[in-house]
Amino acid sequence: MRTNIVTGGAGFIGSHLCESLLARGERVICVDSLLTGSEAHVRALRAHAGFSFMRQDIAEPLRIEGPVERIYNLACPASPPRYQADPFHTVRTNTVGVIALLELARAHRARLLQASTSEVYGDPLEHPQRETYRGNVNPIGPRACYDEGKRVAETLCFDGLRAHGTQVRVARIFNTYGPQMAPDDGRVVSNFIVQALAGEDLTVYGDGSQTRSFCYVSDMVRGLIALMESDATGPMNLGNPDERTVLEIAQRVLALTGSRSRIVHVALPQDDPVRRKPDIALAKATLGWEPQVTLEEGLKETVAYFRKEIGK
Amino acid sequence: MRTNIVTGGAGFIGSHLCESLLARGERVICVDSLLTGSEAHVRALRAHAGFSFMRQDIAEPLRIEGPVERIYNLACPASPPRYQADPFHTVRTNTVGVIALLELARAHRARLLQASTSEVYGDPLEHPQRETYRGNVNPIGPRACYDEGKRVAETLCFDGLRAHGTQVRVARIFNTYGPQMAPDDGRVVSNFIVQALAGEDLTVYGDGSQTRSFCYVSDMVRGLIALMESDATGPMNLGNPDERTVLEIAQRVLALTGSRSRIVHVALPQDDPVRRKPDIALAKATLGWEPQVTLEEGLKETVAYFRKEIGK
Repeated sequence: MRTNIVTGGAGFIGSHLCESLLARGERVICVDSLLTGSEAHVRALRAHAGFSFMRQDIAEPLRIEGPVERIYNLACPASPPRYQADPFHTVRTNTVGVIALLELARAHRARLLQASTSEVYGDPLEHPQRETYRGNVNPIGPRACYDEGKRVAETLCFDGLRAHGTQVRVARIFNTYGPQMAPDDGRVVSNFIVQALAGEDLTVYGDGSQTRSFCYVSDMVRGLIALMESDATGPMNLGNPDERTVLEIAQRVLALTGSRSRIVHVALPQDDPVRRKPDIALAKATLGWEPQVTLEEGLKETVAYFRKEIGK
Repeated sequence: MRTNIVTGGAGFIGSHLCESLLARGERVICVDSLLTGSEAHVRALRAHAGFSFMRQDIAEPLRIEGPVERIYNLACPASPPRYQADPFHTVRTNTVGVIALLELARAHRARLLQASTSEVYGDPLEHPQRETYRGNVNPIGPRACYDEGKRVAETLCFDGLRAHGTQVRVARIFNTYGPQMAPDDGRVVSNFIVQALAGEDLTVYGDGSQTRSFCYVSDMVRGLIALMESDATGPMNLGNPDERTVLEIAQRVLALTGSRSRIVHVALPQDDPVRRKPDIALAKATLGWEPQVTLEEGLKETVAYFRKEIGK
């Protein structure tokens, strides 16, 4: 019975990952500062004998007793308003925190999967993005604490591999959506659904012609576990290459919710990427992984979740 | 009488900067871990009443009493063998260290000049590099701890400006040479001179057609002070746009030293930039600054320094 540490395990993707690992019969130590994660996400998991929870910031000294085989590092605020609230903490999480987890992995001879992000590509000039693309990040912009922080987190992982032979896996996670997204963290899908259900205007940044590719969370979690259990180090893109305009997503949400909200356009924020689409050829070839849930199915599940949450 | 902190003040550029500030009649607190800096560089400065030295790593808590008006952050190993020796420390210097100096600047209402680097451009695809170019850095390569570290250090400075109004200045320093370079840190100019004076083969990486633009250290120090005292935040390129092939530099060193060493070619290291040349239009327009020392004059001074050092 394998023991996994999932940092950021009370977050959106993290909580689904904890659930999947428990369902596989594995033990999970969920580590979360609850800065952006939510206790509600892991409440149901506490019933599992294999589950334990530690409230802990990964940038603070972490002590774990007993064997650990796998460490999934999903600890970091991931939406712009959250990671910009304390940019210094965001950078510390991705440097001091990652160094601490590399040391933990080394001490336990565990494998560390680092949740990197499509944001390492910045506002990409190549489409779709392959893993070899070096990105187009503005180092001094308001998104840089996250983008550059995640880049240097990748650096540290590969230095851990080079210096100590630490088994690292780096996943570049593209936009993901599904139940348990925070309703208020400013992401496209949750924004639209929450606005539609409340009968408020759907705010589209710019003309809405910018594209996004959204991966349903169950597909993402399956990809993360597959990468962890593979022999590949990555970096490996995980995401859904099904590209849609932001405007189309707004329209689909309106149709699915039956909302009579209007779509309104507001100014594009600085450094907002114009287009983002993963090339997942590497994940397909290496892991035999690709997304299975269509946007229509996934949105339906997500709308159902928010309907229930908002009704609470 | 203004007080300056110069971190990395016992390093190559740092020691020249300390000397210049003292010559302007200012006070200097030199802070250096002596990890790569050298006590010998600041020995002569200790005679100045306005000079004091603290042996201190900037990533460790730093206490400075009394007023401070200017902080120049030049603390970081800067040559590949040195910054790769402990990549985790390199990243900590550029994150934990920079955060600490931003806090110090904020507490003292001081200005902070961050020594950034042309390495933020990685192996550039644009020539010459302007400050708006977002670079081409390999985030997982062996040079990344420095390149990505320096990028995120810039990020932190601009977050300091955005979050707290901290007065920051970011200089992107291109290749610099001159007396007090470490003889053994693997830089092109010092390597060639040391090899030529010792009668050893001059090792040129690849065919030597890759170009570098070398700025003499007195020009660089003048630029750093001018940027600090200006109203511009940067990032601002400081360097000499006089581009030469590595092979030409080797030949010039042979001619200047009268050495009978041969030139030999060895394999290019990973991620070695093919070409690097600053666009200094911004520094010219903003600071009225441009280099004045020719490569021939600068090499002569540098050869004279190494001749004396090696003769010791």
